[in-house]
Amino acid sequence: MDFFFTPRGVAVIGATASTEKTGYSILHNLIQGYAGAIYPVNPRYAEIRGLKCYPTVVEVPDPVDLAIVFVPAEAVRQVVEDCARRGIPGVMIQSAGFAETGEHGRRLQEALVAIRSRTGIRIWGPNCMGLVDTRKRYVFSFVLPSIWDQDLVSGRVSLVVQSGLLAAGFLIDLMTAGRMGIAKACSIGNKADVNECDLMEYLIADPDTGAVALYLESIVDGRRFLELCRRCEKPIVVLKGGRSAAGARAALSHTASLAGDGALLSGVFAQAGVIEATDFTQMMDLAQVLALYPAGAARRPPRVGVLTFSGAAGIVAADFIERHGLEVAELSADSRAALQQVFPDWMPVSSPVDLWPAIELNGPARVYGEALAAVMNDPGVDIVFMHLFVGGRWGGVDFEALTQLARKAGKPLVCWFLGEQAEARRFELEARAADVPVFREIGRAVECMAALARRGEHAAREDRLRPAAEPAEFAAQAGRLLAAAGGGVLDEHRAKQVLSTAGIPVVDEVNAETPAAARAAAERLGFPVVLKGIAPGRVHKTELNLVRLGVNSLQAVEKTFAELCDLLPAGGEVLVQRQVPAGLELIAGFLRDPQFGPCVMIGAGGVLAEVAADRVFAAAPLDPQEALDLLARLKMQRLLDGYRGAPPVDRRVLADLLVNLGRLGAAFPQIREIDINPLIVKSGRPVAVDAAIVLRAS
Amino acid sequence: MDFFFTPRGVAVIGATASTEKTGYSILHNLIQGYAGAIYPVNPRYAEIRGLKCYPTVVEVPDPVDLAIVFVPAEAVRQVVEDCARRGIPGVMIQSAGFAETGEHGRRLQEALVAIRSRTGIRIWGPNCMGLVDTRKRYVFSFVLPSIWDQDLVSGRVSLVVQSGLLAAGFLIDLMTAGRMGIAKACSIGNKADVNECDLMEYLIADPDTGAVALYLESIVDGRRFLELCRRCEKPIVVLKGGRSAAGARAALSHTASLAGDGALLSGVFAQAGVIEATDFTQMMDLAQVLALYPAGAARRPPRVGVLTFSGAAGIVAADFIERHGLEVAELSADSRAALQQVFPDWMPVSSPVDLWPAIELNGPARVYGEALAAVMNDPGVDIVFMHLFVGGRWGGVDFEALTQLARKAGKPLVCWFLGEQAEARRFELEARAADVPVFREIGRAVECMAALARRGEHAAREDRLRPAAEPAEFAAQAGRLLAAAGGGVLDEHRAKQVLSTAGIPVVDEVNAETPAAARAAAERLGFPVVLKGIAPGRVHKTELNLVRLGVNSLQAVEKTFAELCDLLPAGGEVLVQRQVPAGLELIAGFLRDPQFGPCVMIGAGGVLAEVAADRVFAAAPLDPQEALDLLARLKMQRLLDGYRGAPPVDRRVLADLLVNLGRLGAAFPQIREIDINPLIVKSGRPVAVDAAIVLRAS
Repeated sequence: MDFFFTPRGVAVIGATASTEKTGYSILHNLIQGYAGAIYPVNPRYAEIRGLKCYPTVVEVPDPVDLAIVFVPAEAVRQVVEDCARRGIPGVMIQSAGFAETGEHGRRLQEALVAIRSRTGIRIWGPNCMGLVDTRKRYVFSFVLPSIWDQDLVSGRVSLVVQSGLLAAGFLIDLMTAGRMGIAKACSIGNKADVNECDLMEYLIADPDTGAVALYLESIVDGRRFLELCRRCEKPIVVLKGGRSAAGARAALSHTASLAGDGALLSGVFAQAGVIEATDFTQMMDLAQVLALYPAGAARRPPRVGVLTFSGAAGIVAADFIERHGLEVAELSADSRAALQQVFPDWMPVSSPVDLWPAIELNGPARVYGEALAAVMNDPGVDIVFMHLFVGGRWGGVDFEALTQLARKAGKPLVCWFLGEQAEARRFELEARAADVPVFREIGRAVECMAALARRGEHAAREDRLRPAAEPAEFAAQAGRLLAAAGGGVLDEHRAKQVLSTAGIPVVDEVNAETPAAARAAAERLGFPVVLKGIAPGRVHKTELNLVRLGVNSLQAVEKTFAELCDLLPAGGEVLVQRQVPAGLELIAGFLRDPQFGPCVMIGAGGVLAEVAADRVFAAAPLDPQEALDLLARLKMQRLLDGYRGAPPVDRRVLADLLVNLGRLGAAFPQIREIDINPLIVKSGRPVAVDAAIVLRAS
Repeated sequence: MDFFFTPRGVAVIGATASTEKTGYSILHNLIQGYAGAIYPVNPRYAEIRGLKCYPTVVEVPDPVDLAIVFVPAEAVRQVVEDCARRGIPGVMIQSAGFAETGEHGRRLQEALVAIRSRTGIRIWGPNCMGLVDTRKRYVFSFVLPSIWDQDLVSGRVSLVVQSGLLAAGFLIDLMTAGRMGIAKACSIGNKADVNECDLMEYLIADPDTGAVALYLESIVDGRRFLELCRRCEKPIVVLKGGRSAAGARAALSHTASLAGDGALLSGVFAQAGVIEATDFTQMMDLAQVLALYPAGAARRPPRVGVLTFSGAAGIVAADFIERHGLEVAELSADSRAALQQVFPDWMPVSSPVDLWPAIELNGPARVYGEALAAVMNDPGVDIVFMHLFVGGRWGGVDFEALTQLARKAGKPLVCWFLGEQAEARRFELEARAADVPVFREIGRAVECMAALARRGEHAAREDRLRPAAEPAEFAAQAGRLLAAAGGGVLDEHRAKQVLSTAGIPVVDEVNAETPAAARAAAERLGFPVVLKGIAPGRVHKTELNLVRLGVNSLQAVEKTFAELCDLLPAGGEVLVQRQVPAGLELIAGFLRDPQFGPCVMIGAGGVLAEVAADRVFAAAPLDPQEALDLLARLKMQRLLDGYRGAPPVDRRVLADLLVNLGRLGAAFPQIREIDINPLIVKSGRPVAVDAAIVLRAS
C-alpha cells in the first residue's frame, strides 16, 4: 500500500485551471505539500499552475505510483484501464456517481472491480475524499485548502472514515480546532476494493500512527477485522454507524433475535479489545488518550488520584469515576504528609484532593507541582486526573514540568479545565505540545479513563493461548447426525444428541416409541419425569401444549403418553425426560453473523430475561479464558456466585460448554443457529434441558 | 428578596484601594454596572475611586438595601450586627473562614445565624461569590472583572451554585465562551440563611429567567424544594454532587439500603419534573434548550425529523435517537414530495433526510429553507434536528428565516454543526441571537431532546389532582398497634396487621399459640401451609432456619410446630400462613429520607433483583396517578403485563397499595422504614407475604 501513502509521482486525472472546481483543489492541495513529481492530466490544457499538463495518463513520464481521479463517473472506467495498462499500482477515485446513486452507478462500480481483478491495480474509492497526511503534509484530496491556513496541529491518531462528506467536514472541524492530533485521515468511500482492513494493516505498521479511529457503516470482512484488532498493539476505536437498524434481519432462534441492537457488535468488539465510540468527537477524544497511553491502565479497576481547584469539581469527578466502575484512590500516608506541606493547617488532606485553599496560600505553580509529584508517586494511584483553571490570576502552571513528572511515573495524566476562552486555545495548544490530554467536560475525561482501563485489561490478556480449535473428536459423529437430519430445524432430541457429541451436558431422556417404553424410561429416570411431544418441524412446544411437567407415576406416564399421541401429527414422537428441578435459568446459543461469522451467546433466561437484557456475545471458536471473560461480562454475577444459599455456578464447566458450543457451530457450516433454552444450572453445573439447531436450507 | 437583586443602594464593607485585592474587585465590579449609590466602607480611606468612603456602615446614608461584606471572618459578626441595627435588610458575606474550615468557623457561622433569628436580617453566604445579573449588568461579586471585557452574551438561564470557586471559574468559562446565555448567577456558599429554595422562589417569579439550573451538594429542605419544582412552570435542571457517597447511611431495611447510589434522588426528581444533570456544561446545555422550549415536546415519544448534510451524521443521530427512547420521524407524502423538488432525480427522500446531493445541486440556502419548511410543517414531526456545516463554500444559510419557520410551527429546532473554528464562534453568536440551540456533539443534542420529551411529559401531568392524604380511616387502629409495639422492629405478624389497617392486602395467617391452634389454622387455610418462627427483634428468619415452606399435612404441622418451638428463644411465636404459590416477586417499601422525608419504593424482588437494580422511588404521600407513573418507570414492564401466560398485574391495585403505603408511613412519624418483601403477585393481585416495620428509637 506504500504507493498510496508515499507515491514517487502522482497523476491528477481531471485536473483543471478553474479555481472554483474540485479538479483544481486536488492539484492545489498537492502542490502545497507534496514534494514529488505532479502530473496534471487533462486534454484541454497544456499547463496548469506552471506544471506541464498531459492529454491522457498514458503520456505521463515515470515514476508515477498514484493516480488521483476526478472525472465524470462514466469516464472513470477508461481512465482506470489506462492506469492499469500504464503500470500505475494505485488509483484513488474521488468522483461520485457510483454504487451510492443506485443501479446504474452500481454497474459502473462493478466494472472497476472487474479491472481490479483482471489487472491487480488497487482502487481506493470511488466516492471518497482520499488521504490527508498531516506529518508529511500530503493532501491527496479535494478537502478545503483553507485547513492549511490555520495552525494545524499534527498528532498520532489515524482516522479511517466511510463517509465522504464527514471526512471533509469533520477533518476541517478537527484540524482547525487544533485540539485533536491527527496523523493520517483516510476516507474510504464506497470501498470497491481498498477497505478498512487494508488500511488498518498499513496503519498498524505505520510509525506515525499511535492509535486508529474508524467510522464504519459496514465491515467488509468482519473476521479479518477482529483478528487485526485483537493482535494489534495499537489501540483501535470504532464508531459503528447504524446500530439501531441492526435488528432487522430475520431470526429463527432466540439467539439470533437477541443479537440485534448492537449486543453482538459490542461483544465481539470487547473480545477483540476494540474500544467502542458513539459520537464523532468522542471517538477522537478516546483515540487521542489511547494514543498517548497505549498500554492503558495496569490495574483493574484503576485507582484515580483527583487533584482539583474546586471541591464541587472533585465531587462531580468522583461521581463519574464510580459510575464508570473506576475508583477514587485512597492516598498513602506519605502522599498526605507531602500534600499537608502546602496545605493550610486547618485543612486536612482528603481524596479527591481540593487544592484551592493551598493555592490561595502558596500559589498554583508550587501547589500543582508538589501535589502532582506526591500523587504520581503514590503506589495506590494508577491514573491522575488534574483540574486546572486557565487565565486571570491563575497563570503559572508549568506544563512541561508536570508532564515530565507523569512520564517519569509512567502513569496516565488526564486534565480537565475551565477558563477564559481567550486563554483556552493557547492552553490547549500548549497541552498538546506537551502530550497531555485536556478536556472541557469532566464526564468525557472520565469516559476516556474508563477506556484506558478496558485497554489495560485487554493488554493483560495478550499472552494467552489461542484457541486449540480441534473439533476432530466430535466431528465424525456430529457430522453423521447432521447429515441424517438433512435441513430445516433439528428437533429437541436430535439437537441434544448433536450437542452431546460436542461434550455439552444435556438432560437425560429417552425417545419412547411405545407406552411400555415410556414407562420403562420413567422408571429408569426416576419420578417426576417430563413428557414432551415432538412435532416434526415445530420449535415451540409449549404453545402447542406438548410439554407436561411433573408426571409422577406409571399410570400418569401412560395417560400422558396417550394424550400427547392424540395431539401429535403423523411422524410425531414422545420424549421422556428427567425433570430438572428449578434452578438458575440461562440461555446459550450460537449463530452465524453475516459480518462476523460464527458467534456464541450466553444470557439470562426465562423470567430473568424480562427484567434486563442480560446477554453477551463473542466470536467463536473462543478459548476457555475468553469464555470466562465472557461470563464476567454478564450482569448477573451475584446469581452465578450462588444466590440465597445455592451453590455457585462452576464457571469453568460453563466456560467449557461455550467453548464446545462455538467449536461445534464453527466446524459445521450447515449450522445456522443453535438455541439451548433453557440451560438450567443444577448443583452448580449447567444442563441443556431444551435445544434446537437451525440448519441452512440445503 | 428584592433587596438582594435590585437594591436601592449598596455598601461595600471591606472595600479597598489596592487593586490586587478582593475588596477592590467587588467595588470595581459594582462601579462598572450598578447605577445606584455605592458606599465603600473602610476606616482606612476617605475616598476610593472617587467615592466617599465611610469608617463603618453606621455612617452610610440612606437608602442602602444591601451590604456586601468582605472582611476577615472574625470581624463579620460585628459588621452584621451593625447592618441589622442600621436597618439594612440584606447582607451578602463573601468572606471565607466559616463552617467550611472546621469547628471554629462553624461557631462563627452559628453566631451569624443567631443574629438572623434575632433581627430578621437576611444573610446570603458566607463563603460565597454573590450575584451576577447579566441583563442589568450587576456584579455583586469579586468574580474576575475581565468577563466584561469580552463579548458577554446574556440569556434566560439562571444559575444557583453551591460552590464558591466553581461559580467563579464556571461563570468565567461560560461567559467568555459566549455560547451559554445566563440571566443571573447566584453563588450561595455555606447557605447559613438564604438557600436554594429562597432563590428558586425568586427566580421562578423573575421575568428574566426562563429556566433554573442548580448545582447542589445538599438540599436544605427537600420537601419544599420538590414542591417548588413540581408546581413550577419553568424547567428546573439539577446537578446533585455527591451521589456516589449517598449509600453510606445506616440502613436497617432493604428499602433503605436500596435508596443509595442516587435511586431515591432520581425518583423524587422525576416525580417533581426536575431534569437531572451529571456534568457542569451538560447542565447548562440542558437548561439552555429547556429555557428556549419550556413546554418541551408534546408527544411521547417525540418524533424527530433529522435534516443532515451527511449520511453518516444522520445514521449516528438515528442511533442516539433510538438509544434515548425517541423516534426518527416518518415523513408524510407531502413532505417527501416537497423535498423531492430540491433533490436530484436519482435520489429518493429517506429519513433521516440527507440533503448533501440536493445542496450540491441547488445550494445550501435554498435547500435548507425548503427542507426545514417541509419538515417543520409535517404533522408527523415533533422536533427538528438540523445539521449544518459552517465556513468554506458553505455560507448562505439564513438563520433568522429558519428560526422564523420554527417559531411559526411551534416546534423545537435543535442544531448540530461542524465547521472551521474561525467561523464557529461567529456562527454560535448568530445562533444565540436567533435563539437556536446549537451543539458540537450529536449525542449532547439528542440528550437535550430527550430532556424536552421528559419536560413535555411532566407538563402534561400538571392538571392532575393533588393527593387526598386523608389517613383518618386507618389512623386510629394503626396508631393503637404502633403504640402497643413501643419501639424497635415490628415483627412480621404485627407489621402485617398494621399494613392491613391501611388497606394493604396481606397473606392470610394465624399466630398459633398451641399445636392444636396450629392444626386448626392449617385446616382452615388449606394445605400446603407455611410455618414461621418469630423471634422477638430478629428480622432475618431464613438465616435462622425459622421458615418452613410446603407443610403438607396435620402431622407435619405438629412436628414442624415442635421443631420451631425448640429453635425459638423465650417470647417466640409461631405463625401459620397460607402458602402463596410462586409468582412475580416484588419488593415494596417506605422510608424517611433525611433530605426528602417520606418516600415509597417498588422494585423487583428475589432472584430478579440480582440481575438488574430495578427499583423506583417517589416522595410520599403520592396520588394514584403518580403511583401509576412510578410503576411505568420500572424496567420489568413485560413481567407486569403478564409473562408466559401469567395474568397481567392489576396496576390500579398495585398503585393503590403504594398510595396506602405512603399514607401510612407519612401519617406516623414514629415509622422509620417499612419493608414488604416479598410482595407476591397472585392472579394479577399483589399480596404482602412478609413484612417488617422499623420504628424510631422511642
